[in-house]
Amino acid sequence: MASHSSTLLSSPTFAPFSSHRLQYSPNLSTLRFSRPIRNKPNLALRCSVSIEKEVPETERPFTFLRDSDDATHSSSFSSSVRARFETMIRAAQDSVCDAIEAIEGGPKFKEDVWSRPGGGGGISRVLQDGNVFEKAGVNVSVVYGVMPPEAYRAAKGSASDQKPGPVPFFAAGVSSVLHPKNPFAPTLHFNYRYFETDAPKDVPGAPRQWWFGGGTDFTPAYIFEEDVKHFHSIQKQACDKFDPSFYPRFKKWCDDYFYIKHRDERRGLGGIFFDDLNDYDQEMLLSFATECANSVVPAYIPIVEKRKDMEFTEQHKAWQQLRRGRYVEFNLVYDRGTTFGLKTGGRIESILVSLPLSARWEYDHKPEEGTEEWKLLDACINPKEWI
Amino acid sequence: MASHSSTLLSSPTFAPFSSHRLQYSPNLSTLRFSRPIRNKPNLALRCSVSIEKEVPETERPFTFLRDSDDATHSSSFSSSVRARFETMIRAAQDSVCDAIEAIEGGPKFKEDVWSRPGGGGGISRVLQDGNVFEKAGVNVSVVYGVMPPEAYRAAKGSASDQKPGPVPFFAAGVSSVLHPKNPFAPTLHFNYRYFETDAPKDVPGAPRQWWFGGGTDFTPAYIFEEDVKHFHSIQKQACDKFDPSFYPRFKKWCDDYFYIKHRDERRGLGGIFFDDLNDYDQEMLLSFATECANSVVPAYIPIVEKRKDMEFTEQHKAWQQLRRGRYVEFNLVYDRGTTFGLKTGGRIESILVSLPLSARWEYDHKPEEGTEEWKLLDACINPKEWI
Repeated sequence: MASHSSTLLSSPTFAPFSSHRLQYSPNLSTLRFSRPIRNKPNLALRCSVSIEKEVPETERPFTFLRDSDDATHSSSFSSSVRARFETMIRAAQDSVCDAIEAIEGGPKFKEDVWSRPGGGGGISRVLQDGNVFEKAGVNVSVVYGVMPPEAYRAAKGSASDQKPGPVPFFAAGVSSVLHPKNPFAPTLHFNYRYFETDAPKDVPGAPRQWWFGGGTDFTPAYIFEEDVKHFHSIQKQACDKFDPSFYPRFKKWCDDYFYIKHRDERRGLGGIFFDDLNDYDQEMLLSFATECANSVVPAYIPIVEKRKDMEFTEQHKAWQQLRRGRYVEFNLVYDRGTTFGLKTGGRIESILVSLPLSARWEYDHKPEEGTEEWKLLDACINPKEWI
Repeated sequence: MASHSSTLLSSPTFAPFSSHRLQYSPNLSTLRFSRPIRNKPNLALRCSVSIEKEVPETERPFTFLRDSDDATHSSSFSSSVRARFETMIRAAQDSVCDAIEAIEGGPKFKEDVWSRPGGGGGISRVLQDGNVFEKAGVNVSVVYGVMPPEAYRAAKGSASDQKPGPVPFFAAGVSSVLHPKNPFAPTLHFNYRYFETDAPKDVPGAPRQWWFGGGTDFTPAYIFEEDVKHFHSIQKQACDKFDPSFYPRFKKWCDDYFYIKHRDERRGLGGIFFDDLNDYDQEMLLSFATECANSVVPAYIPIVEKRKDMEFTEQHKAWQQLRRGRYVEFNLVYDRGTTFGLKTGGRIESILVSLPLSARWEYDHKPEEGTEEWKLLDACINPKEWI
């Protein structure tokens, strides 16, 4: 699960255990977490998960899956959501990086690959101080860990049960934060993840638990309504292909999640966010996550193309830097993936790649009412329906 | 205790309850904290403390004390540590601000004054984007709150007891962070605070509890050994006037406190830090805190004078900005005063005035061995004895 900590959580909001409240117990080198059980909100579990350190690799492996999960070693490929999810997130990483490099026109991503002795691994890609992007990070990771039996029983929703041993789990995800230089070009964050337990070995036939989580959200320093509408429309289109309730529900979830409580404002102008999703057909949700990941480039890149060369003043830049300060506040204080990763000793450079290259804090800064800066702040305080 | 939250914690490391683990319970608008009891580490208490909002004032009052504590309304002035501590911290605020304005040669502090309906209040002073300082904040605050009887019994160390009602407490402190522009001039933080309970009204004669906390620490981006030695020598001199064990003990406490766990490095080059100090004569500790506060100007200002006009390159500035990033990480993730203040809905601009005007995060930045940047990092990883 260190595995879990370092790779899964190498990215903001990347927490397959995202509804768990976590406490790190340094003396034991273990992670303790309590999980509010679905439909049993008053019952919480505490479990210990051991930590394993990552090892740098010189080459990208064909897959981070264990042999037993790997399509080339298994006849069950068609049913392996694990294998297809890994393929999907690695393709998403490639296509987003390709699109960014195409806009950059020269500067390339730097890649770090790592694995874990017990299985799993990850690829971090970062492009820093480019022509268009101040900092762009796109990570994938695959994690094998072991969760305590109490957590498994809780996930199944049955309290009294046989006594299974620790339950192995699998988690994988792609996560990215893209910070452009031009203050009129928005920051983008997206993250899609899949979680699955093995059937416990000593309880043959017990069902696997699984769920999907993720989202794509949009953080401009200045509002261009056509951009915000374009971005939200693409999110809605992706959602509507699967369920008409998805967009309104996940749009609100996004507004609620990216909330900077001590400021009473949101980090940005939202998008979609969902977590612990398992009450739909598994194949349908895999397709949905794939559709969302595939929507990142058409939702975002045209906006950057349109804004990247706009002229701006020092004041525009200072306001962007102030909003970057809010981004830092959200990620370091609230984001579950980041705070979890920091506490569990994960790969720190992957976890904090979400932070902007630079940020700013002015004492008691208040934009004058009616200005463009005020309009952005107002929309962060009072989330709007954009479409 | 909102009082507590907003004013006492309007400053980093300003937590009179600093050994308490805190949890915010938003639905109840209460603050819950569990306090590891001295000498009874396994016993923890949970208490609720109500929150009260601050009110802006147009003028500095003569005192923030309640009439009953105020020297002009009381014959017990000579015994009122509260009154003398308030006088001391306000004098310290004045003298540090005077010294900063003298160096600035023009730019002045902006002042915000506030009070609380239930008693207490504070003065925030900030000088931003000056000639010498990027951001300099110096705050004082005085807080009246009410702590639950369990916390009072715990502080006294007697578990079975009469049943007192809620116990009123008093807390006051000065806190400051000074970030200069020149990358060769160090950042300074100091904070001195005093905490006292009233005797519970329904248990006449029960003893008051009190303690002192605070410290002064030093965060350069580049090491000038003469500067570090000068700074630590002044801290040692202040300590040695009172107890030869103070400097080594509080120097180590400082190294341990300002530790960025996820980086395995300290925020800076330390100084002194102490908390919950009450096992010495109260008058002696009041004099000690006063001596420490009075040492800020001679320990720091001569160093800034010497470094403020040194020539520097863009690379020096970028390294300073990276170290400012670490400052932000420590304050938002670990500092008890800051994290407590953020959770309890305190005066956000006072709490976050400790953040630098600007900061920077580069992916996987590693200074080359032997460079000046590497030397600083090495001293943050392996704390040294400077004198």
